[in-house]
Formats: sequence, structure tokens, C-alpha cells
Amino acid sequence: MAESSFGIGILGAASIAKKNARAIAKCRNGTVVVAVGSRALDKAQAFIQETGASSAKAYGSYEEVLNDSAVHGVYIPLPTSLHLEWVKKAAAKGKHILLEKPIATTAEITDEIISICEKANVQLMDGTMWSHSDRAERMQEAIAARLDPAGMGPLKAVTCTFCVAGDAEFLANDIRVKKGLDGLGCLGDMGWYCVRAALWAYGFEKPVSVSAHAGPLYNNEGVLLHVGATIIWSDGRRANFQCGFDQALTQYLEVAGTHGTVRLDDFVIPYRPDKASFLVTNNHGFTDLDLAVKTETEERVVSLDVPQEVRMWEDFADCSKAIQDEGKPEKHWPTIAMITQKVVCAVEQSASDGCKTKKIQW
Amino acid sequence: MAESSFGIGILGAASIAKKNARAIAKCRNGTVVVAVGSRALDKAQAFIQETGASSAKAYGSYEEVLNDSAVHGVYIPLPTSLHLEWVKKAAAKGKHILLEKPIATTAEITDEIISICEKANVQLMDGTMWSHSDRAERMQEAIAARLDPAGMGPLKAVTCTFCVAGDAEFLANDIRVKKGLDGLGCLGDMGWYCVRAALWAYGFEKPVSVSAHAGPLYNNEGVLLHVGATIIWSDGRRANFQCGFDQALTQYLEVAGTHGTVRLDDFVIPYRPDKASFLVTNNHGFTDLDLAVKTETEERVVSLDVPQEVRMWEDFADCSKAIQDEGKPEKHWPTIAMITQKVVCAVEQSASDGCKTKKIQW
Repeated sequence: MAESSFGIGILGAASIAKKNARAIAKCRNGTVVVAVGSRALDKAQAFIQETGASSAKAYGSYEEVLNDSAVHGVYIPLPTSLHLEWVKKAAAKGKHILLEKPIATTAEITDEIISICEKANVQLMDGTMWSHSDRAERMQEAIAARLDPAGMGPLKAVTCTFCVAGDAEFLANDIRVKKGLDGLGCLGDMGWYCVRAALWAYGFEKPVSVSAHAGPLYNNEGVLLHVGATIIWSDGRRANFQCGFDQALTQYLEVAGTHGTVRLDDFVIPYRPDKASFLVTNNHGFTDLDLAVKTETEERVVSLDVPQEVRMWEDFADCSKAIQDEGKPEKHWPTIAMITQKVVCAVEQSASDGCKTKKIQW
Repeated sequence: MAESSFGIGILGAASIAKKNARAIAKCRNGTVVVAVGSRALDKAQAFIQETGASSAKAYGSYEEVLNDSAVHGVYIPLPTSLHLEWVKKAAAKGKHILLEKPIATTAEITDEIISICEKANVQLMDGTMWSHSDRAERMQEAIAARLDPAGMGPLKAVTCTFCVAGDAEFLANDIRVKKGLDGLGCLGDMGWYCVRAALWAYGFEKPVSVSAHAGPLYNNEGVLLHVGATIIWSDGRRANFQCGFDQALTQYLEVAGTHGTVRLDDFVIPYRPDKASFLVTNNHGFTDLDLAVKTETEERVVSLDVPQEVRMWEDFADCSKAIQDEGKPEKHWPTIAMITQKVVCAVEQSASDGCKTKKIQW
């Protein structure tokens, strides 16, 4: 079945946009980059050449991208402080929006962004690529099977980490360590993926409270360079995560029930783009006299037809196109973006308020 | 070289003592079980038969074990609330002491126990078996090499978990959920191993403070069933751990520097008693455009001549016997027991005081 094409316009020529432009080129549902705008025309031209998006038009401004009628949806990888302004402008032109995370620096701005998109009847989706992969689907099935006789039992805990050591150049100049650009620092960037993972594991049930762990690290501008937190759901179910720019790469995700776990060491960016795996344990416990472990660990390998970014862009185009038939955007994506943002912001407030527990108002 | 024999007396016929009796039988330095005491003589006799310690004498009381001149050292696996009483009695008889963890329920009692052993000139060692294994030695070498050009860089964080789901019988009746027996619950049991691992990774440098994570779980008696905490060292270096009786078996340990990690999934009780491994990563980071991971992970396999419990008993006997030559017990063991206990107790105080940060007084 031939599908209608879906044109993407990219606002800005950031490095993360290059990855996504290449991913869009692999989409199997007619999604193509049709326009790239940068504050300098030659940057947009270079970007198009580098990413092989040869049929795309280069523009020397973001506005021109929004005025291009071939653009059905836009990708906004701009610094978080610019999100509201460009969401407003894009929505006013009826463009669907894939917005890099975090959505905003506050839950209030996030509400405003979501409301703008709703009123304009455009799809909003945040750029959490890992959750679109086939592996995430297979993991979700393993988690959902937890009450089967051989399953992991009721969920008790999620443990999650996403850290990487920024070099001197990163720590001095990257937009993610600048108060006025990406004010949530490592929490808005790495922490977003962790919070999303915890919510995803619990089926997006809304948590009760969050508490930052002692000793969050800030730079001189007051931007978070490392923070951990505990998120609490009803009945004491919990998630613990760590994110930061100050230690070697770790991207561990473990979902634990009473009798087994689902876990992996590369949850955000897989070791390989074409094949990924995760570990399922069951029959947990020790052998006689606790001399060894009787837990059985099974590695489930998932062959990936396309990298997870491609799946994200296909999903974005599919649900944007579906609005024509169904009349309304898919609510799932803005809803989970809002929940994620509220938890992220509550962690930031807890960290800046002596790690006091923050109840979340829903 | 033939070594002099070293007689062990066991106080109590608990399940953990069976594991250790079998381990002692494998010692290569003349360590042997020579006496087993239980409150019921037939229990001691059954224990001896079951563990194959056929040359050991069975006694119907603990006192008789202490009065046996063939006993050079005792193993005390009794509930924590009985430790002080039996350490006093054993030390008064000049017996060296391997004491199950936790040493005590408070730092004050720990100080008293250490002081009693020092005055009696007997060796004190706690039962942290994993730290005696050849694997722990190899890991320590990998950590120590962190400032080599290919090493992991300065240490930043330790992440550690030891959880197992207690069944209904355990949660109702085990001594580790009884206030009057092992009042520190999962923290004194599983948490001890985690705290020790963090201290071990940092070369037993004394931490500055601890803060329990939000939402510790208690049973009706007020005994901890789950707790997590952050431990802070100078310069913001940290450890995060989770321990509990309420979720599937997890025993993860990760030591992270700026450029690499050392980690394993079975740090307390290895998957196999004869062969164990750990993972060393370096060259951390992502490939071009963050589509995959460039980190290299090397599995280092350590062949174990004997299970880690055997190594612990050999170490205990060796340093007890060395007192004859050197005049004084090895201070390392009581020193690290004291540091571990102080951190464990500070976590307990933080958990019971609204998770407030507790500075540790040294």
C-alpha cells in the first residue's frame, strides 16, 4: 500500500538533528526531510549535504521553514528556553511537532505548550527515541507477563541510570550546562530518559512523590551536573535513578518484581543499532546453603529492522497523518510528556530545596 | 610446609553455620571444626552429622564450646542481640572471634565489642565472605589501576544493590525481621554487604554523611524490610545502595570512574562457587551521532580454587595464629567492621528520622 508522504522541516542544524535527519531518510512510511532552517543559510546547506537529504530546501531562518507548505511536521531540537516560542509559531502554521526533551523548564510552560498544540489540532510528541524501539515493545511484553506463573510477580522497583562524563569543552560550553538555555541540566537531558523509563515500566501510573538524593552536583551557574532521586508510587512501589555528566557512561535499567527482573545495560542508546537484547531472570534465589545462585537468566535478542530513531519518526508521521481521519491528535504522547515533565520538575525542586520530599499534584 | 591446626567452635546450629562448617572442612591451612554447641545436644549432633565434621564434639550449650581447650576460635552466627554477651564470654576465654554481620545494632555496642577483643588480645573479624574471594582481589586491582592511561579515571560513584524476596514464612518468622533479635532488619543483613562494598571500593576512606532514600519500608515491629541510601565522601563522591527483603534477587555492584567502570551482577553470592567473573569497561562513550555505544566491555574470568567462604576461614585462622608471633591482632578487620557499622547505623537513624542527612562523627 502506497502511503502519502509526510514532509519534515528541521529547525536548527544541531548535532542531534543530524542523527534524526539520517533516521528520517530510512523511514518506510513516506516521511522525508523537506526543509532545514538555520540562522545561517550556509549552515542549513551544509547540513543537507552532510545528511544526504538532497531533496530538502535550505533556509536561513526558522520562519521560512514554517512557511513552507511542503512541511507537515517540524522537528524542534532548539535549546529548551526557546521551545515555547517556536511551538507557538509552528502550531499557528498548523505544523505537527516533534519536540526534543525536556519539553520545558517548568510544568506550567509544558501545560501551555500542550494546550497550544491541542487548540491548533496538531500532534505533539517528545524525542524519547528508545521507547519506540522493537526492543522496548518486547520488554513491555515481558513486564506485562509478570503475573503469569513463570513471571516476575508484582512490580516493586525500577532502577535506572544514565550518566556520561562530559569533557572540559562540554562542561564549559554545551547548551546543556547553560542556565539560560537548558536550565534543567543533566536532569532535563539524561534524567528525562530515566524518569520516562520508570513511568513506562509502571504503565504511566502517576507517582505520589519524589525526593532527590543527597548531594546533587551543580556547576557555577546552578545547573545540575549530577542528581539522583527516588520516585514513590502507591503501596511503596519505587524507582531510583541517577543521571549526570560527571562519570563514565552507564545506562542501566532494571525492572524488578517479587520473583524476577527485566534488565539491560544499554537502554537509551543500544550497543548496536541493528540488534539489541535484554535479560529476563526468573526462579530467583540461591542454591542449597546459599553457596551459589539458582536464578536463571535468559537473554532475549531482538533483531531491529531499523534504528529506534527511525521507528520514532514513523510513529510521529503516522499519528500526525491519522488526524485527518480521526479529527484529533493522539493524546497518549502529550499525556506522557506532561507526566514525565512534572516528575522531572519535582525532582529539580526537591534537589534545590534540600532534597525534601515533594508530593506531586495531578 | 605443614601448618599448625586451628580449631573452630561453632555457637549455634543455624543454617548459615552449616555453610560455614562445610567451608571450614575445605580449608588448606589446618583449620577444622572441633566443637559445635546448640541449646539442644541432639541438634548439635545432627549438625555435625549433616556437615560431615565428624571429628567435632557436640555440646548441649555454648559455654561448653568455650571451655573446650581444642577451640582456638569461635564462629558466632547468633542473633545480633546476643553478640555482646557471647563476645564477652568468648574473649574472656581467649578465643578468637568470627562474628556474623552486623556486629551490633548500635555503634556504641560495636565499640564495646571491639574494645573487649582488643583488651583480650583476640582477633575479631566479621563474616563478609565476598570480600575474601580471589575475584574481589582482582576487582580491587582493576579499581586501583584507575589512574593508568587506560584506566577508569578518578572514582565518582558506587552503585550497589542486594535484595531478595522473603516468602511468607520468612517475613513472619525469620530472626532478621524480629526487633528483639536482628533489629536492623534488611539493613543489618543485606545492607551490610552493600555498605562494605562501597567502603571497599573507596579504600575504606571514611565518608562524610549518609541520607536514607525516601520511602523505607518497615514491618509491623518497625524492622526495615527495604531501604536505600546515598553515602557521600569528600568532593561529592558518592555511593547509592538498595537493600531489601521485598523484591527479586538482585546483587549488582558497579564502581564508576570518569572513564570506565568495574561491575558485576553477583557480588555477594556468585553464580557459581568455582568460577566467577566481572566486567571492566573503558573507552566509554558513543559512536558518531550517538547511534550506538563505543564502550568496550571486557569480561575478566577468575577461576576460584575454593569458594569464598573457605578463603574467609583461612584468612581468619591465619591472622589469629599470627598473633602468637606479632603479639597483637590484625587491626584491619575490626577497623573496617567499625566503619561499616557506623555507616549502617547512620543509615538506620536517617531512615527513622524522615531521611534527614546524618553527618558521621569519626
